[in-house]
Amino acid sequence: MIDSQKRILTISIDCLGGDNYPSAQIEGIKLFLDKNKNSNVKFLLFGEKSILESYLGKFKIHKQYYELIDVDKRIKSEEKPSIALRNGKGSSMWLAIDAVKQKVADASISAGNTGALMAISMLLLRTLQDIDRPALAQMIPTEKNSSVTMLDMGANIDCSSDNLYQFAVMGSVFHEAIVGKKNPSIGLLNVGSEDMKGNDVVKSAAFRLKNSILKDNFYGFVEGNDILKGTVDVVVTDGFTGNVALKTIEGTAKFFAKNLKELFTKSLLNKLMALIMTKSFRSFKDKINPENYNGAMFLGLNGISVKSHGNANGRSFCFAIENTIKLIKNNINEKIIDMLIVEE
Amino acid sequence: MIDSQKRILTISIDCLGGDNYPSAQIEGIKLFLDKNKNSNVKFLLFGEKSILESYLGKFKIHKQYYELIDVDKRIKSEEKPSIALRNGKGSSMWLAIDAVKQKVADASISAGNTGALMAISMLLLRTLQDIDRPALAQMIPTEKNSSVTMLDMGANIDCSSDNLYQFAVMGSVFHEAIVGKKNPSIGLLNVGSEDMKGNDVVKSAAFRLKNSILKDNFYGFVEGNDILKGTVDVVVTDGFTGNVALKTIEGTAKFFAKNLKELFTKSLLNKLMALIMTKSFRSFKDKINPENYNGAMFLGLNGISVKSHGNANGRSFCFAIENTIKLIKNNINEKIIDMLIVEE
Repeated sequence: MIDSQKRILTISIDCLGGDNYPSAQIEGIKLFLDKNKNSNVKFLLFGEKSILESYLGKFKIHKQYYELIDVDKRIKSEEKPSIALRNGKGSSMWLAIDAVKQKVADASISAGNTGALMAISMLLLRTLQDIDRPALAQMIPTEKNSSVTMLDMGANIDCSSDNLYQFAVMGSVFHEAIVGKKNPSIGLLNVGSEDMKGNDVVKSAAFRLKNSILKDNFYGFVEGNDILKGTVDVVVTDGFTGNVALKTIEGTAKFFAKNLKELFTKSLLNKLMALIMTKSFRSFKDKINPENYNGAMFLGLNGISVKSHGNANGRSFCFAIENTIKLIKNNINEKIIDMLIVEE
Repeated sequence: MIDSQKRILTISIDCLGGDNYPSAQIEGIKLFLDKNKNSNVKFLLFGEKSILESYLGKFKIHKQYYELIDVDKRIKSEEKPSIALRNGKGSSMWLAIDAVKQKVADASISAGNTGALMAISMLLLRTLQDIDRPALAQMIPTEKNSSVTMLDMGANIDCSSDNLYQFAVMGSVFHEAIVGKKNPSIGLLNVGSEDMKGNDVVKSAAFRLKNSILKDNFYGFVEGNDILKGTVDVVVTDGFTGNVALKTIEGTAKFFAKNLKELFTKSLLNKLMALIMTKSFRSFKDKINPENYNGAMFLGLNGISVKSHGNANGRSFCFAIENTIKLIKNNINEKIIDMLIVEE
């Protein structure tokens, strides 16, 4: 994998997933190719051939960049993971992940059902050596105009301190690959910053981190308000708390957006102001929109399986492609294994 | 307590707590008395007599409404609860709570150190009959222009399903007393709305609720984004998750406020717009400001101990006084006991 900077990178894409398929996927590829002329990336597109062809034509994407695999079976967004596992074989999502398993693709991207994607990814790719439980990592914008990587976002409801330690390792490697920051700082999500705070699991995970190769990067405990403050680069937590925190952020963002909208439509004067400031508002919206920080990933599997936001548009799908390439080029899984071996 | 509508209600106030003491406390009383002419409320003010007298004079508060207790010992905002318990005797916070214990006051309010307030309240007031663990309840504004009551906000890190059930009882009684809504709906915070989601504790708490006198009010599982959406009236969770969620809301609110501020100061035109819209902005800010929903409470103690926001101003302190009176008049503790007895 050393020469991955030069060889052709292959990414399999589920073109029947998410709210805006296949336009988001194909427009994302188009935007990516526009930004990266003479790219060494090839896309395996799993979806309905005739429809895909019309989009590929519309966006003028050259044949050298893709290969079409005709599939019309898709996993619905409301499908339960257990049902998806049982009946999902042959679906676009399944085949896209299987391409990674078969080493035909270096990574896969899907904007489909998160639970199903997680279940199928685990079944097909299996857990990485020395990792007990894979985790879902997510990037979130911060006040500091940077991003924080948070994990686990819901793959593991009950976690041990060993799980949290492994999440810290995986999150660090992920953050370094995507953001390019060496030795990212790590915080453990807790209800206070003092040593005595929290439950036994976080306390013993903190002890473990303080005595590990990550000790110099370990910031200590962080609280809910530290996530968007950007206090640390990587926030580690169990899947229950992580999922609640992420959805609470989304809910609070919506609450603000709704109130702002009301403010700017409640009088003619306010409407006028909003109109004058359209451009400023757009940049504001871009900055606070979590969809512009697209690309969650299931870390800890024998292969790269990226989850794009379900309602991603072309721009955010392009962002997911760029992140996926960073993960491939940075040999993320090899680095995770190396770090855990050193520790043993 | 049946005639509590007519008799004098006595509220003890810690006048050495919070960021803005004693001005927030005294201004809060002034605003309350302005709104409630011929009030039957008397305040026991624990603080530095000479300073309090000058504020009471400034706000022209009549002597019939207060009694001064000269205290200069205060518990610092950064004091650890264990230290506060050991050394806090004789402090304004301690004495204000002790007045409730001695039945000299019907309730106490403090804007001081939350951890210390919780520890001292528990020590002096003790746990209510049939309650295993007291909880910290907090009201939060929602999209629906209503409020949601959330508990526990950090008093109990590890919770059993019995604890969660009791939180549901206490939260319902609290919400009904403050908001005046009969049979408030109850949601259990989880990582998904389906029955199979979550850990054993929430699953068995859900089972318990479905088979209790609260069954008709039990909505089921809710997620992080449901909190501010106002999906239910009462959100029940353990203290770890509740604390993380509350602080995540605060952090997200700050993130938005900071970005909005940047938006309205980045150009002369934008600054001008902000100036023109000052009034609209103020009402927007009021609506989204959690400080305007002031008054958390330790539920499940033999007495009413209200926690005001540390940086409350006069207006929000007045709000805490109004809520405290509702809790007294509604005999909140008697109702909690009744509901738990019915259940046994």
